[in-house]
Amino acid sequence: MSTLKHIMKNFDPFLSYDSILNLFDKLDIKKPAIENIAVESSMMRISAIDVISGVNIPGFNRSAMDGYAINSADSLDASDTNPVKLSIEGVQGPGRKAITMEGKHKCIEIYTGAEMPAGCDAVIKVEDTERSGNDILLYSECHPYLNVSRIGEDIKSGYKITSSNHLITAGQIAAMVATNIKFISVYKKIQIGIINTGDEVINGTIKNSTGALLSSFYSNNYIEARIAGLCNDDISSIKNTVSSALDKFDIIIVTGGSSLGESDMATAALEQVGKPLFSGVAIKPGQTMALFYNQKPVISVSGLPVAALISSLVIINRYIKNLFSFELYSRAFAILDTNIHKKIGFTTFHLAHAYVGENGLHVRPLNTTASGNISGIIDGNCMIMINDDREGIEAGKQIMIYLIGEIKWD
Amino acid sequence: MSTLKHIMKNFDPFLSYDSILNLFDKLDIKKPAIENIAVESSMMRISAIDVISGVNIPGFNRSAMDGYAINSADSLDASDTNPVKLSIEGVQGPGRKAITMEGKHKCIEIYTGAEMPAGCDAVIKVEDTERSGNDILLYSECHPYLNVSRIGEDIKSGYKITSSNHLITAGQIAAMVATNIKFISVYKKIQIGIINTGDEVINGTIKNSTGALLSSFYSNNYIEARIAGLCNDDISSIKNTVSSALDKFDIIIVTGGSSLGESDMATAALEQVGKPLFSGVAIKPGQTMALFYNQKPVISVSGLPVAALISSLVIINRYIKNLFSFELYSRAFAILDTNIHKKIGFTTFHLAHAYVGENGLHVRPLNTTASGNISGIIDGNCMIMINDDREGIEAGKQIMIYLIGEIKWD
Repeated sequence: MSTLKHIMKNFDPFLSYDSILNLFDKLDIKKPAIENIAVESSMMRISAIDVISGVNIPGFNRSAMDGYAINSADSLDASDTNPVKLSIEGVQGPGRKAITMEGKHKCIEIYTGAEMPAGCDAVIKVEDTERSGNDILLYSECHPYLNVSRIGEDIKSGYKITSSNHLITAGQIAAMVATNIKFISVYKKIQIGIINTGDEVINGTIKNSTGALLSSFYSNNYIEARIAGLCNDDISSIKNTVSSALDKFDIIIVTGGSSLGESDMATAALEQVGKPLFSGVAIKPGQTMALFYNQKPVISVSGLPVAALISSLVIINRYIKNLFSFELYSRAFAILDTNIHKKIGFTTFHLAHAYVGENGLHVRPLNTTASGNISGIIDGNCMIMINDDREGIEAGKQIMIYLIGEIKWD
Repeated sequence: MSTLKHIMKNFDPFLSYDSILNLFDKLDIKKPAIENIAVESSMMRISAIDVISGVNIPGFNRSAMDGYAINSADSLDASDTNPVKLSIEGVQGPGRKAITMEGKHKCIEIYTGAEMPAGCDAVIKVEDTERSGNDILLYSECHPYLNVSRIGEDIKSGYKITSSNHLITAGQIAAMVATNIKFISVYKKIQIGIINTGDEVINGTIKNSTGALLSSFYSNNYIEARIAGLCNDDISSIKNTVSSALDKFDIIIVTGGSSLGESDMATAALEQVGKPLFSGVAIKPGQTMALFYNQKPVISVSGLPVAALISSLVIINRYIKNLFSFELYSRAFAILDTNIHKKIGFTTFHLAHAYVGENGLHVRPLNTTASGNISGIIDGNCMIMINDDREGIEAGKQIMIYLIGEIKWD
């Protein structure tokens, strides 16, 4: 254990939150590789291509009702006092080849989803007819295409079902299946490697709750986050673990050893891997040091859970936003319950609890004084961000919140 | 294909949405079995037990800063003009056994996260001291526990980390790991079996987009939804497939053959399996018939995608809400952009698009006339529900929306 550096009062000034995002935006970041997967398995994966329908849905004019397919011209002048009689010439079921109706004053019994028989252009609902033997009686005129879903009415050939760089939805999967698209190119899951450092984590004095928090929080349908290594407070061990993880992961988070007091192990190790993009960000909680090596971000964060989550989250969210067209977290608007005070100069993130109250969503900041606070992440389902040029937010205002958990709606 | 039943005008009146939910609430539904899994793998699984911390976090009084651990009594009367000199007697690092400081006017170099040495009750930040050889100079008094995280300050022994029947969060996982809890009892994933019926699905005239929609939409960390079978329009085939699926699945959705026009195949088949709870619900889109057999719900819905999704969703959401303490979908409040008109007597669900506009979230209903519309599910990220006793909602009102997709926030 080295002696405390009193020089730490003079470390490089932190960069502002905005300026590190701007730095990050200019980077040439490597996207994950692309793979082809079955459409049915593509839920919430990131599309790598635009998917265009090559067919019309419906593929043919289709009955939208159970009833009788007719030629609408035959219904002219039909009225309560002057019904038109049509003779039933056949049956058209769904999934069956369209039959042909020839001649005048005829009709075809038809079922929802069935192709319109040739010679028919409208469907009379069964409820709107009266049956008499093999005939039906019509009591009103009908216009062409009544109760008919026309070819391409739902999806036209050429319609863009899925845009590249978006999360694929269940509705898009349904549309791809409907249009006979079987495979889709998606980005491989983003691999996040978490390297936890610290003698106390290795010897078990402190459990690796930060590693569990990050791997659980980030893992979803399009991200695979897992522990890539545990390291003692030892520069060469951290350096070697990071170097080897760079082969396997798209993003690396190194937790612990990032504050100057922890002997700066992670920072010193990363400086041996490459040139840091920045070494401190004016955000609270959490000091961050980010390195960009071989087109991949390496983020060194605090070993304390909340600080590690927030400082990695702002970078990883930006990574996703820059590479793709969405964000990692969802948001909501909520009414702030109590004033929040802060100092100018730092962008602050406040764990908070959003709930359904009078006039909509409310949000109550949690008293999380220490950035190591775990109970705060249990109770908090959202974060409030306040820009560095502000002194706080007044109670009663509607603000945007960043969701990191579920809101209880009922 | 049987002849259209003109008697269909006289079918049983539909039950109201509220009354079928009330019927459903009285059922004795079987919960999935319980399994023990590693805490690290429990993200968004449903907890089957309350998890109580057996330890304090921190487990000891802990330094929250890098600096010097002192006995606060030694700082009495320290001031700018009368500094107190303390001699450095040792070093206390995180993960190391607490050392003991004996005697007066001494101090211990200490690092963030380290256990407080015996004989010390406060930590002076390194920035607030001046070093002179092996001594430090203190210029102000400090109170006991300054910069010390006290034992149990974050999580006390006895604190409930996770409640049963809730979705497990990343913060709870971090807390369980921190408190040395390695395994947790969770409900096995809810198994939803989807049985798609229809000659046109079997012969490929119509692709099974409804099956793909339902299996993609429902599958998540705690639900496994998959196709359990495809059936021709044949009563005994449907009956046998449902009977055999009842062994393997917690919930069964039968799509197609549920409207009277489709010859009522699914309804007829299910009536041979057990007594239906109800055979029609006054919701639009979608007619539903539900059977409750062997403590498991069997839901017969339309073969058309939107109707199948909405009518199964209202039942499955209620299933989850009744068995556990949360809901399947998230919600939000949004300002309605255009009037919605509807008829009294039906509870209606409108696919809509929620977006960030002036003064917060807005929602625009989509023009989805036919319940078979797939493009509507592509564009829609939410649903609007309107009760059966209302004629619609006026534009400009803030309403609750049910999220079935992502909102684009930026």
